[in-house]
Amino acid sequence: MRVVDVLHMNGGIGDTSYANNSLLQQKVILMTKPVTDEAIAGVYAALSPNTISIADLGCSSGPNTFLAVSELMRAVDGARKKLRRHHSPEFHIYLNDLPGNDFNAIFRSLPQYVEGFKEEMGEGFGPCFFNGVPGSFYGRLFPTNALHFVHSSYSLMWLSQVPKGAEENKGNIYLAAASPPCVIKAYYEQFQNDFLTFLKCRSKELVISGRMVLTILGRQSEDPCSNEGGQIWELLAMALNELVDEGFIEEEKLNTFNIPQYTPSPVEVKLLVEKEGSFSINFLEATNIHWTASEFVDEIRRDHDGYNVTKCMRAVAEPLLVSHFGEGIIEKVFHKYQKKIVDSMSKENTQFFNVIVSLTKTCDS
Amino acid sequence: MRVVDVLHMNGGIGDTSYANNSLLQQKVILMTKPVTDEAIAGVYAALSPNTISIADLGCSSGPNTFLAVSELMRAVDGARKKLRRHHSPEFHIYLNDLPGNDFNAIFRSLPQYVEGFKEEMGEGFGPCFFNGVPGSFYGRLFPTNALHFVHSSYSLMWLSQVPKGAEENKGNIYLAAASPPCVIKAYYEQFQNDFLTFLKCRSKELVISGRMVLTILGRQSEDPCSNEGGQIWELLAMALNELVDEGFIEEEKLNTFNIPQYTPSPVEVKLLVEKEGSFSINFLEATNIHWTASEFVDEIRRDHDGYNVTKCMRAVAEPLLVSHFGEGIIEKVFHKYQKKIVDSMSKENTQFFNVIVSLTKTCDS
Repeated sequence: MRVVDVLHMNGGIGDTSYANNSLLQQKVILMTKPVTDEAIAGVYAALSPNTISIADLGCSSGPNTFLAVSELMRAVDGARKKLRRHHSPEFHIYLNDLPGNDFNAIFRSLPQYVEGFKEEMGEGFGPCFFNGVPGSFYGRLFPTNALHFVHSSYSLMWLSQVPKGAEENKGNIYLAAASPPCVIKAYYEQFQNDFLTFLKCRSKELVISGRMVLTILGRQSEDPCSNEGGQIWELLAMALNELVDEGFIEEEKLNTFNIPQYTPSPVEVKLLVEKEGSFSINFLEATNIHWTASEFVDEIRRDHDGYNVTKCMRAVAEPLLVSHFGEGIIEKVFHKYQKKIVDSMSKENTQFFNVIVSLTKTCDS
Repeated sequence: MRVVDVLHMNGGIGDTSYANNSLLQQKVILMTKPVTDEAIAGVYAALSPNTISIADLGCSSGPNTFLAVSELMRAVDGARKKLRRHHSPEFHIYLNDLPGNDFNAIFRSLPQYVEGFKEEMGEGFGPCFFNGVPGSFYGRLFPTNALHFVHSSYSLMWLSQVPKGAEENKGNIYLAAASPPCVIKAYYEQFQNDFLTFLKCRSKELVISGRMVLTILGRQSEDPCSNEGGQIWELLAMALNELVDEGFIEEEKLNTFNIPQYTPSPVEVKLLVEKEGSFSINFLEATNIHWTASEFVDEIRRDHDGYNVTKCMRAVAEPLLVSHFGEGIIEKVFHKYQKKIVDSMSKENTQFFNVIVSLTKTCDS
């Protein structure tokens, strides 16, 4: 079974992103704002559409679902005022995630959100129309030429499936210093296939001169095992290995468990964009976000809000673990894992690297 | 609080339609098929869009959700083959209902449905893209000129709110022979306002020459109190009146409870379409569907599938009753009501009247 199928049943990719907590996601949106603002204002100024169609891919369901699209609509409205255009475009907003995402929660909070947002924007803004789009972004989601702008934040590091050949990654559950070259190759090839498929699909869906801004959990180094993203998966691997030692998990079973995530470097992203051929790159950068120990501890303490990193990790890892190991060991795994996360991560600062890329569709692929 | 707000919180209009059971809905789809087929084939032949955009308003969530759009896509594909056009259009399907509708259930069943449907249609069909659109159709749902075809079945008899003035309808909970003229007027005016708003919104959203087929639970007679739709609401009124007699409900409370439904005649529909002014009528008819006692009993017996008429009635009536009377009396009401429905309706055949209208958008309103 493909990972997306597991996630289909258990919750969307967005829900399962380990960066899907409010503070970190807000930091990312803020950091990428100048890039997204420039891109969406650019497409609006260039194409002057009566209706501007915007897709957020991997929108998740939670307090941050409307954050990115709100910023995008604000940027268009700002550009409109600057250009002294009298009429606001209509906004057609497509919120995408896997079919298992909680779209009901999004839709039920929509009326209140729209009311508040319209009030903020004042007379003459909009109207805006929201649609839910269930499906994997590693396939077509929209008709040809349907979109002016595509945004995706912290979703594209999720692969469509565990790479074939990853079962050689014995003892590890992700790319690590000890991973054999064939596993590294398998991971990269899966990313390459997935990212090229993504670009081809979006190329069909975007109009010429349409824009796309992608933020991907990535790395600065060219070494795919550099582990710049911190110890998140290493700690889970440690917990699972302990359960092997204690006899709760068979070693063979652990050997075939791998996390379908790849954190690309800017160079890798650049090469694949060039290979696909229908986009030009306006901006490409790897930046880091510091996640201080105290912020981390704050997040853990915000239990009553339902946002702490252990919970977020559990959201992503649990469906994968259950699908592979069965329900029986889950509580044991997370008991160990939570202890390790709290012990380890609250002591040292962590940083995440993001690859931000801003693209213009220049020709049909 | 408006009725739509109550329904927002409790479930979509579609979910709450008392015709939302599988057999009756299938009958309706089958009956209107020649009209919808002609209309969608006509818009496809006339406009030859690369992407044909189809909205189903009040799609509900259940075994019938994909029924209407499947028929529409089949009709387009049939027309394409007849016209010997080589390339299939892309299908952009918008499924609309109130934000309280269970879109998660729709989205989770979508991959399997699409796979099966593509297999049925064979090579060269599609692709088709599905979006969920949460919101009341008594407001704008789509950008200007976004749609080629609008379909709505068994939804437009639901008003946006209980008519102002309906509180004079003492003892009744719906238009009945004993309803005073001011109540009849209030109901009709609410329908008039709502239906005109609906037409104005759809007129903006449909392209010129776009088509719309609406099936509305209605009546043949010009008497709005003719009660052609059977005793469904009368039986509920009887149950509630008995609870007044037994002291469980205050009489004053019952007097202010009214069902926000209006079943129009073809003449009323025609007048309002002409008044709005941007649509021409291709077809308008009131037809009846017989619902035999044995079919009715079959539905009741199909408990294990979750579709029986009492349950359907409960789905529509419960949120309205809870909002008005509170949770406390609900079990008592439905205990009485279920008995009355089974006693009364299983003895005699029932018929429903539908008003079917097929429209072409001829000019901007």
